[in-house]
Amino acid sequence: MTMFDKIALIGIGLIGSSIARAARRNGLAGSIAVGDASEAHCQKALALGICDSASMQVSQAVKDADLVVLCVPASANAEVAERMAAHLKPGAIISDVGSVKQSVIRDVGPLLPEGVHFVPGHPIAGTEFSGPEAGFADLFQGRWCILTPPTGTDEAATAKVKAFWESMGSMIEIMEPGHHDMVLAITSHLPHLIAYTIVGTAGNLEESLKGEVIRYSASGFRDFTRIAASDPIMWRDVFLNNRDAVLEMLQRFTEDLTALQRAIRWGEGQVLEDLFTRTRAIRKGIIDAKQDS
Amino acid sequence: MTMFDKIALIGIGLIGSSIARAARRNGLAGSIAVGDASEAHCQKALALGICDSASMQVSQAVKDADLVVLCVPASANAEVAERMAAHLKPGAIISDVGSVKQSVIRDVGPLLPEGVHFVPGHPIAGTEFSGPEAGFADLFQGRWCILTPPTGTDEAATAKVKAFWESMGSMIEIMEPGHHDMVLAITSHLPHLIAYTIVGTAGNLEESLKGEVIRYSASGFRDFTRIAASDPIMWRDVFLNNRDAVLEMLQRFTEDLTALQRAIRWGEGQVLEDLFTRTRAIRKGIIDAKQDS
Repeated sequence: MTMFDKIALIGIGLIGSSIARAARRNGLAGSIAVGDASEAHCQKALALGICDSASMQVSQAVKDADLVVLCVPASANAEVAERMAAHLKPGAIISDVGSVKQSVIRDVGPLLPEGVHFVPGHPIAGTEFSGPEAGFADLFQGRWCILTPPTGTDEAATAKVKAFWESMGSMIEIMEPGHHDMVLAITSHLPHLIAYTIVGTAGNLEESLKGEVIRYSASGFRDFTRIAASDPIMWRDVFLNNRDAVLEMLQRFTEDLTALQRAIRWGEGQVLEDLFTRTRAIRKGIIDAKQDS
Repeated sequence: MTMFDKIALIGIGLIGSSIARAARRNGLAGSIAVGDASEAHCQKALALGICDSASMQVSQAVKDADLVVLCVPASANAEVAERMAAHLKPGAIISDVGSVKQSVIRDVGPLLPEGVHFVPGHPIAGTEFSGPEAGFADLFQGRWCILTPPTGTDEAATAKVKAFWESMGSMIEIMEPGHHDMVLAITSHLPHLIAYTIVGTAGNLEESLKGEVIRYSASGFRDFTRIAASDPIMWRDVFLNNRDAVLEMLQRFTEDLTALQRAIRWGEGQVLEDLFTRTRAIRKGIIDAKQDS
């Protein structure tokens, strides 16, 4: 069922192009406009048939749109907001898909004109691939999408964004932005940082070892390389924009790792066994919560 | 084709029971005997029909065996070797499947009688599940198996172990034991240690955050929980037995992580972007090497 006469997706990478596909398949939008600074991305999106129009001018893409979703790296939010602000339709809803919510509220909120509604969002979904070709309509199926409307946000606007994501298969949670950023720091940002680090550490090895790291990656390492293949710009921006929460979680992690290092050095097997038994139970919680199989 | 009249598998967990299934399916053994300290494991193995006999007495299991494969946690190797030594058939080949090779050579080698051949091995394959039910015949298909025969090992014995693993679908590499332990420290042992740590760090969070960690685990964390669900005893023994190599790699990792922490604190985006771009290339190497898809 058509929920918006026109939606505009600013940034047509993995997430933007997945929204386009899901919205089109489910008939959620009368028309879909794409705005993307890359001409190649615009042409690709048109060629894929996932949008009705595509423009390098964000002002053009957002014209008459009832819903505008920012799907760009966090560092681009402010510039996009500045360029589109004067061209937004009165009553339009603005949302986004970024992994950090306090910074987008800080960067975008003050630039929006009176009479439009800002409902920040974050779909917990993705892959390690990037670009318009990487998207697929089922990406959000059965996955959480967290909305973090600032205090005072129009409730009808929040309800519309909620219904939009539910129509793409997501389950919705409303959360305070600062709490969101702390939860994601431990569930997402720190795991990515650690994966990037260990893959980098392996990449710095002596040549005699490096080839073997790839060859024997099935022993555990390759799970980290998949995570560490995620979009470099997007992730640079996540760490720069969620600095305090990431540094807090990183500090806790480092303390725990140092304690394990000490247990290994001194041969304290019971310390290792106790932790390894406890972590198995957490995995069971995830299976029980149907977040993996 | 039958390669051994009788093989004995000591320890019938994930790896032992996978060998039993693969050997049986491919007719590699005239008969398969299981030795396992757990009565429940022995009964389970018999009930599953993956062996011809099962005993809690290792001396019984190895009797007349042409190939004995130790599939127990590293800390149990010495005791098993002591119990079986006097009962080994002259000319028998002894092998193992452990993740650390210098320690099994140190612990088992001196206990074996003259006239038997010791060819340590390590199949790079596994899952996070444990026990006789967890095994499957295809576990080794397309995966590497590293053999680390000590200097002076009978070449015919090494060739037989190589052919045995090849018949179960593995690709073989012969490696010096110390080199093996260093390669696995970075490709396997450190990734497991880090996964255990971060899952433990999350488990220590305030109650208000803990439930959400499970709920939003799809954002990266759940890949770590799968790794951190691996067998606690086996992994405790890996870290205790490959201490020096693990501590060396852990030190390198910590230095790299500290450098990233500093870059985040000081907002050095280029440092982050450079690393994240480099790690993407390493992932590509793994795909190209067909170690993941």
